[in-house]
Amino acid sequence: MPKDSLAALTKLVLDFRAARDWKQFHTPKELAISLVVESAELLEIFQWKQGVELDQAVAKRRTEIADELADCLHSILLLAHDLKIDLGEALFEKMNKMEEKYPVAKAKGKPRKYNELE
Amino acid sequence: MPKDSLAALTKLVLDFRAARDWKQFHTPKELAISLVVESAELLEIFQWKQGVELDQAVAKRRTEIADELADCLHSILLLAHDLKIDLGEALFEKMNKMEEKYPVAKAKGKPRKYNELE
Amino acid sequence: MPKDSLAALTKLVLDFRAARDWKQFHTPKELAISLVVESAELLEIFQWKQGVELDQAVAKRRTEIADELADCLHSILLLAHDLKIDLGEALFEKMNKMEEKYPVAKAKGKPRKYNELE
Amino acid sequence: MPKDSLAALTKLVLDFRAARDWKQFHTPKELAISLVVESAELLEIFQWKQGVELDQAVAKRRTEIADELADCLHSILLLAHDLKIDLGEALFEKMNKMEEKYPVAKAKGKPRKYNELE
Repeated sequence: MPKDSLAALTKLVLDFRAARDWKQFHTPKELAISLVVESAELLEIFQWKQGVELDQAVAKRRTEIADELADCLHSILLLAHDLKIDLGEALFEKMNKMEEKYPVAKAKGKPRKYNELE
Repeated sequence: MPKDSLAALTKLVLDFRAARDWKQFHTPKELAISLVVESAELLEIFQWKQGVELDQAVAKRRTEIADELADCLHSILLLAHDLKIDLGEALFEKMNKMEEKYPVAKAKGKPRKYNELE
Repeated sequence: MPKDSLAALTKLVLDFRAARDWKQFHTPKELAISLVVESAELLEIFQWKQGVELDQAVAKRRTEIADELADCLHSILLLAHDLKIDLGEALFEKMNKMEEKYPVAKAKGKPRKYNELE
Repeated sequence: MPKDSLAALTKLVLDFRAARDWKQFHTPKELAISLVVESAELLEIFQWKQGVELDQAVAKRRTEIADELADCLHSILLLAHDLKIDLGEALFEKMNKMEEKYPVAKAKGKPRKYNELE
């Protein structure tokens, strides 16, 4: 199976869920909770560290990081599916909005929110 | 461009970033912060609500939800790219681990963590 | 020592930190990361559960909940101290703003954000 | 009213809630969601920034930071009250556990989790 298509990845997580009869627990709200909890587990890997200590943590814990990213993608795919949101389309639309909010001429090289740009 | 492939979506966010010279701000740690912040914005949409009030919020704020999901996917794609993690592969591997942690016979119909299953 | 005063609790966490020479790691940004990570660990306790399953989790994991709340308070006390924010005063001021945003006549019995009130 | 006692601050948030009849929405799970959402809003203030840009954000947005800290404390006080957890006592107990996990001799000057200490 192609591992690069959202459709294939979505099928993977739907089959897993169907086999366990877990859809009943997967309200959008619970899936959003799940996404926050997993994102925070990812962030925890980088916590307190800077510079060399941080680089070492990233190198040493790469499998954990991949696992947490997969967990996050998992929740996103289910949420999008259940709410009938086309995730690829949503990203394209979002990037269009971002192009307007962050025009290259103003945003280039600046770590600022759009409302802080001059 | 196909909107269903991780490769195409990754190219989309990389081009956006390159044009703004933002890679310098996108350490894995900052991208993980970003993912948590956006996940929490998604969760905020469902906050305090249950039942009918919740269903109404989901219906009314569907575009916002799609936007937040796109934001989360955005951060995940960048993080995976920068750390040379194959996201599709990572999800397949994670689901294999989940198959072991949550065998159908034990987990079916139960909203529990693997360490709470009997 | 009185365990009910913010001053006494702040002294407790400052002494712990000074003994370990950890102030160098405690930038406001890192402490905010810490607060998010700990809050998400608290939320994780309630994840996926509703009704009886949820009540049982709360009853059974009360010590863990107290620990996570203490962790969160810990980060808040350090952040407030380091930024010279009077936390008690900040709460009083915030509640004043909340009184205006959520007048009793409009907000009573409604699980809504102030911008959703009629 | 003394603004430094947990009892006084708890009374403040309880009175606010009672006047709006909001206890019905304040399950421990919802309050934990609230705490995560508010913590992430705090973290958002520090997002993307380092060095001088970060220091400037902290200085310029001090009132917002105080507001977010107050929001977090608000949720913590309600959660502790509703679950009959003595928050001051919980912090003292937690710090005792931390003393054991992070003995000064091993932890001094190291930004590591207890399971990473040598």
